[in-house]
Amino acid sequence: MKRNHYSRRDFAFTIGAGSLAAGALLLPQQALANPIVDDANINHIGPKSGFTPQIGTLMSMLDWVSDSVIKYHSKLSVEQLDYVHDKDSNSIGSLILHVAATEVIYQDITFHNLNGFSEANKPRWNVAMELGDDARKQIKGNPLSYYKDAIDDARAVTRREMKQRDDAWLLSGETKEWNWNNYCKWFHVTEHYANHRGQMTWYAKRIPK
Amino acid sequence: MKRNHYSRRDFAFTIGAGSLAAGALLLPQQALANPIVDDANINHIGPKSGFTPQIGTLMSMLDWVSDSVIKYHSKLSVEQLDYVHDKDSNSIGSLILHVAATEVIYQDITFHNLNGFSEANKPRWNVAMELGDDARKQIKGNPLSYYKDAIDDARAVTRREMKQRDDAWLLSGETKEWNWNNYCKWFHVTEHYANHRGQMTWYAKRIPK
Repeated sequence: MKRNHYSRRDFAFTIGAGSLAAGALLLPQQALANPIVDDANINHIGPKSGFTPQIGTLMSMLDWVSDSVIKYHSKLSVEQLDYVHDKDSNSIGSLILHVAATEVIYQDITFHNLNGFSEANKPRWNVAMELGDDARKQIKGNPLSYYKDAIDDARAVTRREMKQRDDAWLLSGETKEWNWNNYCKWFHVTEHYANHRGQMTWYAKRIPK
Repeated sequence: MKRNHYSRRDFAFTIGAGSLAAGALLLPQQALANPIVDDANINHIGPKSGFTPQIGTLMSMLDWVSDSVIKYHSKLSVEQLDYVHDKDSNSIGSLILHVAATEVIYQDITFHNLNGFSEANKPRWNVAMELGDDARKQIKGNPLSYYKDAIDDARAVTRREMKQRDDAWLLSGETKEWNWNNYCKWFHVTEHYANHRGQMTWYAKRIPK
């Protein structure tokens, strides 16, 4: 793999490089009879132990994309995480909290059939969900570990709740008012991490030296 | 669903609004015996007719995210698609071509075991893959339909090739040099659309009136 050819542009090529490729020892034919599960390799997207196949695959995607958000900003200082590029921009830190907040609001929507945050979640997560002026004022002064912990807290709840559900639940859930099934809602949570990571990496490249 | 509460921040809430929720008529129990397939609703993420379950689910994600890239920029003029925010920025148009180029290079990597673009694909796609100065000079003057056609051309090849493969193939493919299975490589193509869409929407908000 000529990594250098892509690494300039294709940010994710470096994620997880160096860890072993356990899956590579398994042949496709084996997988037909016995689905390939490789819980140890974050770069193995697919079914995971303890989850139904499609839910495990979703969890592997969530873990991969949130890991990329943290890895790509692992060298940023508190001041760099607080950098605000222009009057309408959000800091990298506030965007990390925003993607975690979005995961939490979708927990309340899909696991508890609420229209938004539960009363318990709103105080912790609403400012990050809304972003803007309040976020610029209130979300600052934190090291990356603070934001990683927020994602980990949200993910622990997602993991616990998803273990109690199955693929039939994941594939259902559309209503006449909102025709996204539960998998679409959770795929959106996943791609929403990537959407804002694209902004975070853009800001990171423009932090004044 | 209180849409307004999120629509300011949560761009994807408006995608596909208004179409019927066919899946909502199916109960989870039915899905256990007969997996829910709803080919008509782009907001139904899951298995699709003509593909193995995990490959169909991946195709539904690819279609959802590339559709969001086009929908979110449907009102932009040629000049707006060519807007370059600062000397290191890429135009919205060039970023749309870049995400399509990334889909094409992963076709060559995963379907044909190449290390990059085939000789046939390189002339059309390499400038968009690399971005930067050449892309700023060469990728301009095109309406959105030009970029949508590029995505559609790439997707037609992905769809044709994926129909010939199965979940065992999708879950395999790690090597010692690159421990991403084929599903990880294709999930990356998917989340890479979202990553750059986050930059496109940021630029779109800052195009001078």
